Parts: sequence; C-alpha cells; structure tokens
Amino acid sequence: MKMEKLERPAISQLLGELTGWTLDDSAGSISKTFKFANFVEAFGFMTESALAAEKLNHHPEWFNVYSRVEVKLNTHDAGGLTELDFKLAKAMEKAAARRTD
Amino acid sequence: MKMEKLERPAISQLLGELTGWTLDDSAGSISKTFKFANFVEAFGFMTESALAAEKLNHHPEWFNVYSRVEVKLNTHDAGGLTELDFKLAKAMEKAAARRTD
Repeated sequence: MKMEKLERPAISQLLGELTGWTLDDSAGSISKTFKFANFVEAFGFMTESALAAEKLNHHPEWFNVYSRVEVKLNTHDAGGLTELDFKLAKAMEKAAARRTD
Repeated sequence: MKMEKLERPAISQLLGELTGWTLDDSAGSISKTFKFANFVEAFGFMTESALAAEKLNHHPEWFNVYSRVEVKLNTHDAGGLTELDFKLAKAMEKAAARRTD
C-alpha cells in the first residue's frame, strides 16, 4: 500500500493530536525525545514500539542512550510524512504513557 | 565497582579480539555499524544486546534505522574505555553472529 504524502493542513491537524512532537518541515519528519526512569523502562518502550512498527510495516529512526530515546519518523518512499508516521507516533505515545519518567 | 580506564596498549590488544570495531581515540570510544537482513533481525540483536547490557550494568549509545544498528561504547564515569566496553562489545558480536546479514 503506497501512502499519500500529507499536506501541511493535514499535518498540523494530526500533530495537534500528539504531545511533544516537533515538525521539521524541511526534512518532512516529526521527532520527539522520550525520557524514562532508567534503561529497562527505555528499552521496554522501544520493544513495545518495535512491535507496533513491525505490525505497521513502518519503522522509526531512533537513538538511545540509557534512559533517553530520540525518535524521528518520516516516510522515505513518500518523501515526507504520511498517516503511517502519525499511527506509529500514536502507538509510541501509548507505549510511553505506560512507563514512568 | 569502579572500572579502571584502559591505556592504549590494553585497548589495542582488546580491539584485536574483536572484528570491525573502530577506535575513536579522542572520544575514548569504540564503535561499529551492524547490518542485518531486516528490522526484525536488527531489533532481535538489540534485544539480546540490551539484556547483556543490563546484566553488565553498562549500556550502549546506539542508533537504529530499519536493518542498521550503529553502536558506540565508552565508559562515561571513567572518561574513556574500560573492560566493560569490551565485555559488552563481545556480547554484541555474539548476538550479531547468530543473525543473518
């Protein structure tokens, strides 16, 4: 399934449904830094997010050091943001909400 | 347990026991990029590495996008490399060797 690249009004609306994500307009990506209590919580979040990503067949770029996870989402094939990015962002929000920070 | 910062001869010897790791002398770190067949293999490697890291109480800095995992190891508290970095590197080598690339 080829996803349609979203235009700015749709992006703004979907961003409004998330918390703490930053739009990089030129890169066509959204990003967020998640902070947890320790490595176990951070990697627990990553594991839950990885399952969601694999299910969506849409994967993050992410960096982890100890309790911090920096996430960047975009849809390479579409050259920007698609609904998949926001679906994955929402799944990650849910996974993070379950964990202390 | 406070680990001793390793001097260059010890680092060279331990590096020689690993494959494909690069020493960044100024940063006091070693790094390697691992490539796998897909995200599931890459995250499987990360999961196995995470368990080893938690057991050692010594954690990596790492970046993942799809099938690629970039790892950097150093011991912040010691201001350089210690045996812990090489223990974790070896555990990661083992975890990677189990997976196709």
